[in-house]
Amino acid sequence: MPLNDLKSVPSGNSASSKQPLRVALFGFGTVGSSVARILVESQPEGLRWTHVFNRNVARKRSDWAPADIVWSEDADEVLASDADVIIELAGGLDPAGTWVRRALEAGKSVVTANKKLIAYHGVELERLAAEKGGHLKYGAAVAGGIPVIPGLEQGLAGDHIRRIEGILNGTCNFILSRMEEGADYATVLKEAQAKGYAEADPTEDVGGFDARAKLSILMRLALRVIVDPDEIIPQSITSVSAMDFSYARDLGCTIRQVARAEEKGGELAATVGPMLVDNNSPLAWSRGTENMVIFNGRYGGDVVFSGHGAGGHPTAVAVVSDLLALAHGSRRVEIPSVPAKIGVEFEVPHYIRFLVNDRPGIVAEITSALAREKINIRAIVQKPGFPANALPFVVTVEPCRSSALERALTSIATMDCLLERPLNLQILE
Amino acid sequence: MPLNDLKSVPSGNSASSKQPLRVALFGFGTVGSSVARILVESQPEGLRWTHVFNRNVARKRSDWAPADIVWSEDADEVLASDADVIIELAGGLDPAGTWVRRALEAGKSVVTANKKLIAYHGVELERLAAEKGGHLKYGAAVAGGIPVIPGLEQGLAGDHIRRIEGILNGTCNFILSRMEEGADYATVLKEAQAKGYAEADPTEDVGGFDARAKLSILMRLALRVIVDPDEIIPQSITSVSAMDFSYARDLGCTIRQVARAEEKGGELAATVGPMLVDNNSPLAWSRGTENMVIFNGRYGGDVVFSGHGAGGHPTAVAVVSDLLALAHGSRRVEIPSVPAKIGVEFEVPHYIRFLVNDRPGIVAEITSALAREKINIRAIVQKPGFPANALPFVVTVEPCRSSALERALTSIATMDCLLERPLNLQILE
Repeated sequence: MPLNDLKSVPSGNSASSKQPLRVALFGFGTVGSSVARILVESQPEGLRWTHVFNRNVARKRSDWAPADIVWSEDADEVLASDADVIIELAGGLDPAGTWVRRALEAGKSVVTANKKLIAYHGVELERLAAEKGGHLKYGAAVAGGIPVIPGLEQGLAGDHIRRIEGILNGTCNFILSRMEEGADYATVLKEAQAKGYAEADPTEDVGGFDARAKLSILMRLALRVIVDPDEIIPQSITSVSAMDFSYARDLGCTIRQVARAEEKGGELAATVGPMLVDNNSPLAWSRGTENMVIFNGRYGGDVVFSGHGAGGHPTAVAVVSDLLALAHGSRRVEIPSVPAKIGVEFEVPHYIRFLVNDRPGIVAEITSALAREKINIRAIVQKPGFPANALPFVVTVEPCRSSALERALTSIATMDCLLERPLNLQILE
Repeated sequence: MPLNDLKSVPSGNSASSKQPLRVALFGFGTVGSSVARILVESQPEGLRWTHVFNRNVARKRSDWAPADIVWSEDADEVLASDADVIIELAGGLDPAGTWVRRALEAGKSVVTANKKLIAYHGVELERLAAEKGGHLKYGAAVAGGIPVIPGLEQGLAGDHIRRIEGILNGTCNFILSRMEEGADYATVLKEAQAKGYAEADPTEDVGGFDARAKLSILMRLALRVIVDPDEIIPQSITSVSAMDFSYARDLGCTIRQVARAEEKGGELAATVGPMLVDNNSPLAWSRGTENMVIFNGRYGGDVVFSGHGAGGHPTAVAVVSDLLALAHGSRRVEIPSVPAKIGVEFEVPHYIRFLVNDRPGIVAEITSALAREKINIRAIVQKPGFPANALPFVVTVEPCRSSALERALTSIATMDCLLERPLNLQILE
């Protein structure tokens, strides 16, 4: 007897007494076909896969799909069908947003993995769903197969979350954890592209735009603030190089793309970018395409979630779980959130790496510029083995605001000996 | 403006339009008073704390509690009151079970942190709740403040979970992680008792009974099998000593109390006890009273949850989150489970530590006894610095069943040179 067969037993299952939910897939790429696979293999009670919409849908038809699935390349046709739930997996703001709005307006429910749409329009779309009697679920939009959103909504609703720290972009984590092992950025980006982890244009991922969209969703659910994602200015990981990992190692750290947000005394800070993280922090332990989220609550302290944040199957688990929640009548714990502005910067220590054509007096000039902004130096590290005409060295500074440091660096950037603008990374303590 | 105030905003909150749920606390110890604290400080919409039942309740009355709370030492009075939800925090099978049954029979809902009651009677109580129109929620019963149960029910329902590995007892984790730092068992047990982490009689925790109750709850929700907790034979941590940590370290491991269960080809294995865990495993990273659970799913791979598994405030977060879910009309995703037997043993490598009065021929006799049970030796390790009349040494063996190994050890136990029965620990790979 298969122990784990979703359909095996009747019992008090509320879904069993009703008509199954009719489910239409919008998008039949990696995630869409994984969702279909799970629905076909597990046959979960209460769900029936009925439609697929995709461009050039003929090449998508699969021999393992039930014969009665409607395959369509006409979005209107599927939106007008008797499907109860639209699974939106096209991504991006448009036309995905139009489809989601039209589905909700028709009283259908929507399950989506679209972080961008939810980050920018989630509040409006949830309101629309509530008005029209449908539901909007997006457990797959943040951290894929890790149940961060259900865990937060259902299990941490009773806490007062004050801080979020996350590794929310698997592409960046793959690149940075490979660079930690010695690979250089260009090579590992190509490897990530070959493996399907990175797009041909990787800006959305490496530039931090994907992570900030996810962070803003978590801020709404955890910190209960509605922020404009564009207010979070991301720092790209592209300027991190092999020598930075070498210096980070000397400081007992590694480098990860971290998304963090904090509420303190009614003020809000949020940032996304490559940061030095202590080797003893859980964030340093996540490797490859893994995601991790740490919430700090006033009552419950730190809670850590980690696992596979992306990929067809893990993301599909989140989608099917959302479908099951709909089929079983589970409702969101709607904790009210309020519009808010990101008003303050984190005051944290920083790592600044310079690349210079060596000459006397450099350190004196740099330290004077920092002193003018009242920034205290913690350490100056210069490793041997580099040529004098392309000499890297690192200054770490005591907690300060990035804006003060940037002012100092703008003044430092005029120095003739600098071969490039200094790299400035936050140190997460 | 307080950013995170649960009561601050109206919006489409489904709870706001209804009468708040009237909440009675059964038990006003550490967790109960933490629940009350959160309800008073956060004033979550949709919830109203109305009653406390406790023996000698007069000494429990708190000046920060609202004046209209009914304080009672009469369970019947509170069960007969107009409270909609009973929060059962007394623990144990009786009288807690009687109160829970009576509350459910009266059509009330119950929120409980009682792992023993849920492990032994959860299925029956859920059926009763469904019959009478109430709800039973027990997010606090496993891993306290870590949202393992909501994450599993709402976020991993779409996966097919095959394996559970967990650190489910904070007392054992505190003791073992302190022993890892060099403390001996008796001293650290006293420390744990002084800090309130361990009971005067610590058997329930150190003997593995608490962890097996929690494991059986997770097996029902994740592996979807209903097992009798008594079928899981726990191994106590009390026979682990400082020298075992020293040997474990040489093997690249540490020792943790691990609860694990697995479904493979329709067969079920489950075990609880001290195990060697690799230093690279997340299980090795959990320190102090932390809990951790790793689920392995067919589609989503490994998902890790960690945080504070016990203590007043974290457990109270789980209780209040369950209350909010009730107030907001959230319903469980009821995945059917089937009665099952634990039919197989794990086949894993083992660590066996002998303590002998040294004489020639010991290793030959031990290895012959293992060979008779067809158990292959992986390594024999003997560290210097111990006296010949109380000499410890360790044999590790290739994957085998514990029962075969126990047969060999029973034969070995008759050897005159043995000072105590050899300690046999599973190695988690």
